[in-house]
Amino acid sequence: MEIKKLAALIDGKVESEISVEILGLNGVESAKSGDLTFALDEEKLTLAEQGDASCILTDMHIRRSSKPLIRVKNPKLSFLIVYNTFYSPESRKVFVHPSASIAATARIGKDVWIGSHVSIEDNVTIGDHTIIESNSVIKKNSSIGALCHIFPNVTVYENSILKKNVILHGGAVVGSDGFGYVKDNGKIYKFPQLGRVIIEDDVEIGSNTTIDRGSLSDTTIGEGTKIDNLCQIAHNVKIGKNVIMAAQCGISGSAVIGDNVTMGGQSGIVDNVTIGEGVRIGAKSAVIGNVKNDEIVWGIPARPIGETKRQMAVLSWLTRHFKALSKSLK
Amino acid sequence: MEIKKLAALIDGKVESEISVEILGLNGVESAKSGDLTFALDEEKLTLAEQGDASCILTDMHIRRSSKPLIRVKNPKLSFLIVYNTFYSPESRKVFVHPSASIAATARIGKDVWIGSHVSIEDNVTIGDHTIIESNSVIKKNSSIGALCHIFPNVTVYENSILKKNVILHGGAVVGSDGFGYVKDNGKIYKFPQLGRVIIEDDVEIGSNTTIDRGSLSDTTIGEGTKIDNLCQIAHNVKIGKNVIMAAQCGISGSAVIGDNVTMGGQSGIVDNVTIGEGVRIGAKSAVIGNVKNDEIVWGIPARPIGETKRQMAVLSWLTRHFKALSKSLK
Amino acid sequence: MEIKKLAALIDGKVESEISVEILGLNGVESAKSGDLTFALDEEKLTLAEQGDASCILTDMHIRRSSKPLIRVKNPKLSFLIVYNTFYSPESRKVFVHPSASIAATARIGKDVWIGSHVSIEDNVTIGDHTIIESNSVIKKNSSIGALCHIFPNVTVYENSILKKNVILHGGAVVGSDGFGYVKDNGKIYKFPQLGRVIIEDDVEIGSNTTIDRGSLSDTTIGEGTKIDNLCQIAHNVKIGKNVIMAAQCGISGSAVIGDNVTMGGQSGIVDNVTIGEGVRIGAKSAVIGNVKNDEIVWGIPARPIGETKRQMAVLSWLTRHFKALSKSLK
Repeated sequence: MEIKKLAALIDGKVESEISVEILGLNGVESAKSGDLTFALDEEKLTLAEQGDASCILTDMHIRRSSKPLIRVKNPKLSFLIVYNTFYSPESRKVFVHPSASIAATARIGKDVWIGSHVSIEDNVTIGDHTIIESNSVIKKNSSIGALCHIFPNVTVYENSILKKNVILHGGAVVGSDGFGYVKDNGKIYKFPQLGRVIIEDDVEIGSNTTIDRGSLSDTTIGEGTKIDNLCQIAHNVKIGKNVIMAAQCGISGSAVIGDNVTMGGQSGIVDNVTIGEGVRIGAKSAVIGNVKNDEIVWGIPARPIGETKRQMAVLSWLTRHFKALSKSLK
Repeated sequence: MEIKKLAALIDGKVESEISVEILGLNGVESAKSGDLTFALDEEKLTLAEQGDASCILTDMHIRRSSKPLIRVKNPKLSFLIVYNTFYSPESRKVFVHPSASIAATARIGKDVWIGSHVSIEDNVTIGDHTIIESNSVIKKNSSIGALCHIFPNVTVYENSILKKNVILHGGAVVGSDGFGYVKDNGKIYKFPQLGRVIIEDDVEIGSNTTIDRGSLSDTTIGEGTKIDNLCQIAHNVKIGKNVIMAAQCGISGSAVIGDNVTMGGQSGIVDNVTIGEGVRIGAKSAVIGNVKNDEIVWGIPARPIGETKRQMAVLSWLTRHFKALSKSLK
Repeated sequence: MEIKKLAALIDGKVESEISVEILGLNGVESAKSGDLTFALDEEKLTLAEQGDASCILTDMHIRRSSKPLIRVKNPKLSFLIVYNTFYSPESRKVFVHPSASIAATARIGKDVWIGSHVSIEDNVTIGDHTIIESNSVIKKNSSIGALCHIFPNVTVYENSILKKNVILHGGAVVGSDGFGYVKDNGKIYKFPQLGRVIIEDDVEIGSNTTIDRGSLSDTTIGEGTKIDNLCQIAHNVKIGKNVIMAAQCGISGSAVIGDNVTMGGQSGIVDNVTIGEGVRIGAKSAVIGNVKNDEIVWGIPARPIGETKRQMAVLSWLTRHFKALSKSLK
């Protein structure tokens, strides 16, 4: 596709003295002649110029280049739009591998792809166009909606509900028993874990992430939410819409996470707290209380980020001035 | 069951002007007419009153209600007892799925349930009434006791020993090689990992948790211990009885954890330390030394919780008074 | 083997008045008569003396013993050498389990062992002498080199490249989609994740560890690197050679980790930073900026370890002297 035609597609401004034909898309380092790449800062732009890319997608403010540029407001979004124009999603032929074990009572939709050694138990429903990859297990009475993609070695426990276009990456476990016990006379008894996991449309769950079923209510994940690898969602947790949770986060039992919350990696939230809408939680934080809408918190324990940073600065200052300080107290 | 009869079962005191028939149990939010629910605090009691539950199990001290109450000392325990009266554990027909691969030398007990695509290797022993769910792998020479429940996609490495009534949730890995290397001349050599994992009676292990085999001794998990999802137990670790470990905890090599220890989520313990009996470790702590019996520790590094809180309070005070402090030092 | 002959093998000095025949190797606690064990400190030496070991491997400086000793410079390395003399690695007969599902287009090398319920997709290459254990899935176009060992329930996504002698432990996931999204008008769109994972020779990856494919470039793991259980390696990360990463570490997107870096458990590195060669990162650290070669850092956020320790000491001192301090400011 010629770059002017391509620029029109994404409302972009061409800066080029020559006509260029774009054949594919690629990252700054791996771009070949004929490729469109994108650069968000000057460092990446320089790298892109040194590489073989034929055209660079960038923003409205960056410096001019010796290579053809297309300037747009949101280069990452525009790159995605061009990508979707060039590549159509992998289409899989309708297919059920003969080694898959599918219960007679399961209801399998149209145009479904089921890999080798998949186990689908009694009364499971699989929606149209859904892909269940090899060696995954869907336990009884669960329902997987249309257009879902379950990667290999996933476990979905009984009674789980996945709505439309849900992605579960390799090794994810959905619906396992919550961690609930009653102590009596030095013995520990398992408390009933009767709830379900309900995952709304357009949710993506990372590899080896675990989501426990509710104890007496359900664990719910709202529409559009994205959860990275190795996260832990405990029983009865309610996660809102469009939440972005980086890797290795942990949410304790019955916590409520509002819409549009973002969580940095390795952060944790204690049980029974409420995190307001739009809250941003810095990496490695330990949130031990409720957080109001739109707050930005960080630290162990997490506080408003300015307060945490001020405390760090004060401790650093006191350490540098420790001699004077200790002398003044004698 | 009529509530007076039910109350007698749990040594409870009925507060109701009418006779009520209980048909099932449910959480505060999902309770229907005919259900018993339970409320541990006033907020939950109010929610229960707004819902459809026919009777509320609660403690001796909470306010009176417009709905029938049963008061007991430990509502959670009583709820569990009633639950066990109403529901008997899922009984599975004896069953071995034809797709399971079971070595001829394996010894399979009575009344065992083995799911599809299970792999059981040479010389494995499976005890009576044990359930091995779909797509799990039990490697050679391992022994799984009676009444165990192995959920899907679990891996048990060779020579592992699980005693009676052990539960392994989806994706858990037991017995993988410990992380032990010898460096020489800039090269890294793998040190032999020859020990086993031994898991005593009544242990429950969460989804995607990993437990490494011992290097030259064994890794052991004591009777009644409960470990949540995504925890890491390194080689040679000795965990006592009735330990409660929340999600994403990590125990480094050769650490010794006493009986009745509780660990909050995302906490970690360095190698070779000894944690006394009854110790409580706060969430996200980093324990870097021995801890005496019954201590409560928190922080990074973990110290007695009062000390950690005092330090936090002092830093907060100093930050608030920073202007005066910096002036006094000039 | 007689201990003098054995000592010659490892350049060791025998301290024994009697001749001893060594029949096997074992840890201090499990050693039986006829076993060689090793002790790195006096405490372990005492334990070894109380046990049944017939000879103790130790260093040049430790006290004399009532039991026969062999003194060497590096007892752990020498133990490994003796171990390799006594035990040859498990040899497996060439074997492909009939339940394995292997695409007709896969290229399988010589002397390969493939377990039950393995799924190998189109155009996969498996090198000579490689072991793929039960229930693992190798997706299309991936290449596994010679002498690799893939443990059970592993998932390798499409286009991944594992070179020679790579070990993946149970439940590991290699090549899953990176966590990359574009927000527009309150909606979250998935950004293309087109790169691969490339793992060089002699790398070992722990159980349930996750390694994401690159977005527009590749995620790479250098030769000889060892990664423990439950670690997360995000998209585009470049890890050098001989890196040692303890359990539950997380590396965010596009970070660059130099050769010979060591990372303590539960530490994390933010995206886009560069960690120099030989850097040592303490357990539970949060690295939020570049780190120069050979630095030792610790803390949240991570700083040079001396600085972090000094700050901790100052805060502790201030807490102890808080009364005087607060009085001086009035």
